[in-house]
Amino acid sequence: MRAVGIVVEYNPFHNGHLYHVTESKRAAKADVVIAVMSGNFLQRGEPALVSKWNRTKMALEGGVDLVVELPYAYATQKAESFANGAISILEALKCTSFCFGSENGDISSFTGALNALKKHQQEYDSAIKGFLKEGFSYPKSLSLAYKETAGTAVSLDLSKPNNILGYHYVKAAAGQEASIEPQTIVRTSAGYHDEELPDCSIASATSIRKAIFSDGSSDISQYVPKSTEALLSEYREEFRGYHNWESYFHLLKYMVSTLSQEELRQIYEVEEGLENRINQTIYSAENFHEWMNKMKTKRYTWTRLQRLSTHLLTKTTKQQMKNIPEKAPYIRLLGMSKEGQAYLSAIKKSMTVPVISKLSAFQHPMLELDKKAGNVYASIFPEDVRVSMHHQEYSTPPLRYNRVSSTYE
Amino acid sequence: MRAVGIVVEYNPFHNGHLYHVTESKRAAKADVVIAVMSGNFLQRGEPALVSKWNRTKMALEGGVDLVVELPYAYATQKAESFANGAISILEALKCTSFCFGSENGDISSFTGALNALKKHQQEYDSAIKGFLKEGFSYPKSLSLAYKETAGTAVSLDLSKPNNILGYHYVKAAAGQEASIEPQTIVRTSAGYHDEELPDCSIASATSIRKAIFSDGSSDISQYVPKSTEALLSEYREEFRGYHNWESYFHLLKYMVSTLSQEELRQIYEVEEGLENRINQTIYSAENFHEWMNKMKTKRYTWTRLQRLSTHLLTKTTKQQMKNIPEKAPYIRLLGMSKEGQAYLSAIKKSMTVPVISKLSAFQHPMLELDKKAGNVYASIFPEDVRVSMHHQEYSTPPLRYNRVSSTYE
Repeated sequence: MRAVGIVVEYNPFHNGHLYHVTESKRAAKADVVIAVMSGNFLQRGEPALVSKWNRTKMALEGGVDLVVELPYAYATQKAESFANGAISILEALKCTSFCFGSENGDISSFTGALNALKKHQQEYDSAIKGFLKEGFSYPKSLSLAYKETAGTAVSLDLSKPNNILGYHYVKAAAGQEASIEPQTIVRTSAGYHDEELPDCSIASATSIRKAIFSDGSSDISQYVPKSTEALLSEYREEFRGYHNWESYFHLLKYMVSTLSQEELRQIYEVEEGLENRINQTIYSAENFHEWMNKMKTKRYTWTRLQRLSTHLLTKTTKQQMKNIPEKAPYIRLLGMSKEGQAYLSAIKKSMTVPVISKLSAFQHPMLELDKKAGNVYASIFPEDVRVSMHHQEYSTPPLRYNRVSSTYE
Repeated sequence: MRAVGIVVEYNPFHNGHLYHVTESKRAAKADVVIAVMSGNFLQRGEPALVSKWNRTKMALEGGVDLVVELPYAYATQKAESFANGAISILEALKCTSFCFGSENGDISSFTGALNALKKHQQEYDSAIKGFLKEGFSYPKSLSLAYKETAGTAVSLDLSKPNNILGYHYVKAAAGQEASIEPQTIVRTSAGYHDEELPDCSIASATSIRKAIFSDGSSDISQYVPKSTEALLSEYREEFRGYHNWESYFHLLKYMVSTLSQEELRQIYEVEEGLENRINQTIYSAENFHEWMNKMKTKRYTWTRLQRLSTHLLTKTTKQQMKNIPEKAPYIRLLGMSKEGQAYLSAIKKSMTVPVISKLSAFQHPMLELDKKAGNVYASIFPEDVRVSMHHQEYSTPPLRYNRVSSTYE
């Protein structure tokens, strides 16, 4: 059996994702699609719109056969560690290839850029340092250094968000000497960060979330599969709302008020006097957006500050994020189709990384972070829902989806 | 000018308190009444019904001339430390006497009990240890040891809550070699812990709070001064509700979910494996009351567990509560009448403990705990209210009340 791996967040699953699943499977001539999906907190430092369980259902009903969780320690990081964690999991799951959507669409551009930068590694590194010193943000410095180093020799535009992620996937696979093959397909029209809903059937997740949080009159049915639409309403019904930073801001402020300056400094991503800036700004902000605007500088991107906020909300310390291995030490199974289950049975014996079906069956410091993230994510639920959610997280086996009957077992 | 000191919580201020203020002033032949009042968290380990600012107004409008805050480090402790902090403040404020309400009502019973126990200190101490070993709670062990040691020689019943507090006030004054004189008056009818509203005009604060949190049909006007009634409605209007443990339970659970076992163990009052018990019980509880019932054992009283919860909510560690001085190192002024202001001016030069009018003007590790408690208390307000509350806490001078015109300046 051939498997193709994809790296996803599904926040929420939309028609563009459906296209990505279908095209990846076709391009890789794969029998099953395996998605490594971020849990409840995402790479841009945001809580997911709906829980990982709901998003796992979206994935399964959208054609994915096996959904595994990208641990918190990778999922909330910048592209490099994010990619390392994700690719290592797909490699451990014996995927023949992984396939990502990119603005570029040509895999040789990625390998070309990788080789070009490897050749000029020192020049590249010192250029990055130079731009950082000038006060540019980290992603901006990377992109400027890349332009300066690679020049016109390569065709990959590393200022585009999906090209950046893709570049890091390819780099991770090469760095880990993985046997998994990189593939890419062109992303269809919608830009990653687009905020407005377009006319066609594919919109960015950003614009879809914006519509969901608007007054409720916006109709997203044009942009998402029927299953996503049903799962979203089901979620709102059961959990009495969706999640965004605004729903967690009161907890963030509470957390800050219980931490000393020294403890704030120990939070991951709190650097260079940011602990003072946090204390000086948070108490006068009435919402998260207002607070971000008070925190924002040229040096710190919105994403960087959101990631910091995520670690603050979960009280994740530098100490806890030290020594995170490049390759994931476990794989947590969230859901599978019959086909996914058959694939897993076939490869399980030859796997070297443990697959976790139940939280109680495995212990690892990194898994403690995942548990914590789950509990923190549930903090905004009404208490009765929170109790049942906690029970689900700890006691429910992975979701089993029957694609023929469209039911869960 | 003669001042009488009283130790209060005013949760909320009721007719019994009014009687206490008036009678204390009369008994002490005092010109002014000084109240040392717990801040936002109280001795039984509960958040106050309304903020300390609102309760300061109740006190001023009820006849108190100077309201100062009992620091968090004393206010949330068992009787001994609570009394030490409170009496040291009244002594520092040059009160001629302090006057407490008690079930007993005769001050010689208190000094008699104190002397009797001093004589048999060793016997008393080892009796306490013995009862603790048998698994009795701390207060129960004290009371049993007292009975065993003092026997019928003294007339003070130390199983009554106000006698216990009074005993510790008298003990604190003696221990600190204070010049302040102890006085007591008999508490009128209502029992400290009574839960039902009685027929007369005096009800326990417990029963009044119970009525306030009931369906709203209960009328408390018979039991509180008109000013209290007005201040309570004003508070509910402005802050959109009252405070009790149920309003903070979601934060408590959130806090627990962000702390490691080791960090839980470092919380003040978390002892002897209680960290496991907390983790094992809190996630399946839908409310605070349910959780307390899961936590409760013979060894740990409800009050003890509520205090632990308070320290957990404010993330107050053993380290932070180490080395709390017996005598308060500062006095935070919350409010005063013209008479109180005149008294303070008269004694200020001869005072040895700093009086704080503005939070920014003084620094002390214990004051950090007070600030933290204030911020945590405000965590359940809507964000706009929370911002203005924070501003008040940090930037507003003490309340100045004009008793003649019944206005604030």
